[in-house]
Amino acid sequence: MKLREVGEDKLLDQILPRLPLGKTVVAGAGDDCAVIEIFAGRNFLVLKTDCIVEGVHFLSGADPVDVGWKAMMRPLSDFAATSALPHFALITLIASKQTEVEWVRKLYRGLRRAAKRFDVSIVGGETSSSPGLIVISVSVAGFVEKDRWVSRRGGKVGDDLFVTGQLGGAIKQKHLRFIPRIAESRWLTKHFSIQAMMDLSDGLGIDLPRLARASKVGFKIEMENLPLAPGAKIGDAISEGEDYELLFAISPSQSKRLQRAWKRKFSKLPLTRIGQLRQTSNPPEDGFAAANIKDQTLPGGYVHFQQPS
Amino acid sequence: MKLREVGEDKLLDQILPRLPLGKTVVAGAGDDCAVIEIFAGRNFLVLKTDCIVEGVHFLSGADPVDVGWKAMMRPLSDFAATSALPHFALITLIASKQTEVEWVRKLYRGLRRAAKRFDVSIVGGETSSSPGLIVISVSVAGFVEKDRWVSRRGGKVGDDLFVTGQLGGAIKQKHLRFIPRIAESRWLTKHFSIQAMMDLSDGLGIDLPRLARASKVGFKIEMENLPLAPGAKIGDAISEGEDYELLFAISPSQSKRLQRAWKRKFSKLPLTRIGQLRQTSNPPEDGFAAANIKDQTLPGGYVHFQQPS
Repeated sequence: MKLREVGEDKLLDQILPRLPLGKTVVAGAGDDCAVIEIFAGRNFLVLKTDCIVEGVHFLSGADPVDVGWKAMMRPLSDFAATSALPHFALITLIASKQTEVEWVRKLYRGLRRAAKRFDVSIVGGETSSSPGLIVISVSVAGFVEKDRWVSRRGGKVGDDLFVTGQLGGAIKQKHLRFIPRIAESRWLTKHFSIQAMMDLSDGLGIDLPRLARASKVGFKIEMENLPLAPGAKIGDAISEGEDYELLFAISPSQSKRLQRAWKRKFSKLPLTRIGQLRQTSNPPEDGFAAANIKDQTLPGGYVHFQQPS
Repeated sequence: MKLREVGEDKLLDQILPRLPLGKTVVAGAGDDCAVIEIFAGRNFLVLKTDCIVEGVHFLSGADPVDVGWKAMMRPLSDFAATSALPHFALITLIASKQTEVEWVRKLYRGLRRAAKRFDVSIVGGETSSSPGLIVISVSVAGFVEKDRWVSRRGGKVGDDLFVTGQLGGAIKQKHLRFIPRIAESRWLTKHFSIQAMMDLSDGLGIDLPRLARASKVGFKIEMENLPLAPGAKIGDAISEGEDYELLFAISPSQSKRLQRAWKRKFSKLPLTRIGQLRQTSNPPEDGFAAANIKDQTLPGGYVHFQQPS
C-alpha cells in the first residue's frame, strides 16, 4: 500500500500514539506544537518543526526572499495556534550543488526578516546537498505560560467558532507573505478563555474536522457567514488552504465581549463567528471533507455546513 | 556562482555571523548544537536539527529500520559532541506518495528504537509529500549543565587531541548502526576538563580543521597513531567520514589520568591520542583538506600531518 492510499493524518494517527511520551509532555504529536513542562513552576517549552518543498509549497521561480519568509512563518503560525512566543530557530537547507549562491543569500534574507519580525534568534543553520528538489526545514523553540497555552483538544459542545481575517485566495500571493497571528493569539489568551485553537494551513474543510476530532465534538458551520477574501468563492475558503488565519472555539458567554473588544484592538482585521461546536454521535473521521465538501458547490442560497451525525 | 563552487562552510560562515543572536545564546551557528541560557541558574537548553537524504546519506535499498536509526542518531551524536543530554525529538518525513506505507512504518520503528536507547521522547511528527527524494529531518531538544557544555571553540595551544573508537570503514555498515558517544562524553565532562569537542561526521580531514579554526589554533597529527578500523587505510580514516566518534582536546596535564581511567571505564572502546593543537600564524582556512590530504597517499612510513603555517 502506498502513502497516497492512506493519507498522512491516518498513518500518523496510527504510528504516533505508540511513540513513547515522557510524563512532562503536555502536548505532543497531533497538536500544532509540542508543549513540555521542563522546570516545575516555569513556562512550558514549545517546539515545532516544519518544512517547505519546491514545487509543493513554492514554485521554482518564486522570489527566494519570499520563500525564506514563508519557511520561517509557517512554524511561527503554529506558535500562534498554541498562543506561544517563539524565541529560537534552526534552519536546514537541502539544495543541489547547482543552486545559485545568490539564491541562498536571498533565501536567508527572507528567513532573517521573518525571524526579526518576531524577535526570533536564528541559532543554527546548515546545508545538505541533494540532487533533488529544494527543501527548507525550520525548527523553532519558544515558551508559553502554563495557564495560556491552547491546544486543539479543549473545544466543548456549544462553543462558538471564530476565524480571524479572510479565507480563500491565498494561493495568489498571500501564502508567501503572510504574518502569523501571534499578536492576536497572545491578546486572545490574555483577555479570554480560549478553549481550542489552530491555524488554518490546509483549509477550513480539512483543518476544522481536525480540531473537532481532537476535541471529540462535532461542528456546524454557517456558510453564509464565512469571511471571503476579495474574489474568493465559498469553495476557495473551504478547500484552498494556506490562509494561516486562526480558528478557535470560545464559550458563547464570552462571544459578545470578545467581538466588541476585538474591534477596538484590531480594527483592520475581521473576526467572524462562523458556527459552533456541537455534539456528534460518532467521533468524525473525515466527515467534513468527504461528506460535505460537495455541498459548497450548490448554487445560490446558503448551506448549513455540518458534519453527518 | 553555484553552491558547489563555494562550499557549505564558507557560505554559511559568510551568512550566519550576520544572523541576529540574543544575549542568552551561548553557542549558535557553527557549533555542533545551539546552547541557550533560558532560565537563570538552570541548565542550558540545547537544540539541534539534522537531516538525511536518500542517495546522499542512505541508499534507496537500505533497510528503513536502519535509516530511521541513523536519522535519529545523527543529531544525538551532536549532543554527544556538546556533552548534552537529549530529551525530545520532532520528526519531519518528506516522501513521495508512491512510498510504501510499510517502509514508513519500519522507518518509524528505527526512529523509535534509537530514541528509546537514549530516553528521548518523540513529541511530534509530520509528513510532507514531494515528488523528489526521501528526506528525514530530526530536531532534538535537551539540556546540559552550565559547567559541562563543550564547544569546538575552547581548544588551547598544547592541548592533546584524542579520538574515541576507530576511524574509517564506516561506509560499509557502521554508518547506519552507530551509537552516539553520549555516555562517553558525559563521563568525560564529569571527570575531566574537556577544552573543545566535536563528533566526526565528515571525516577527520574536514572536521579537525573546523575544530582548530573555531579554537583559533593549528594542529599536528601523528599519522602513525591514527586508530584504524579493520581493513581501513589511513586515507579512509581521514577522508571517508561517518565515523561518529568523538574528537576532543584536553590539557596534557590531564592526559595520563584520562587514559588510565578510560581503560577502566570503557575497556572495549579504544581512546587514542592522535596529536596536539599548536600555534598557527594564520587562522587556517581549509588547510588540512587542501594542503595535506594528498599526504595520506604517500606510500609507507608515516607523515606528520600538519597544517601549513
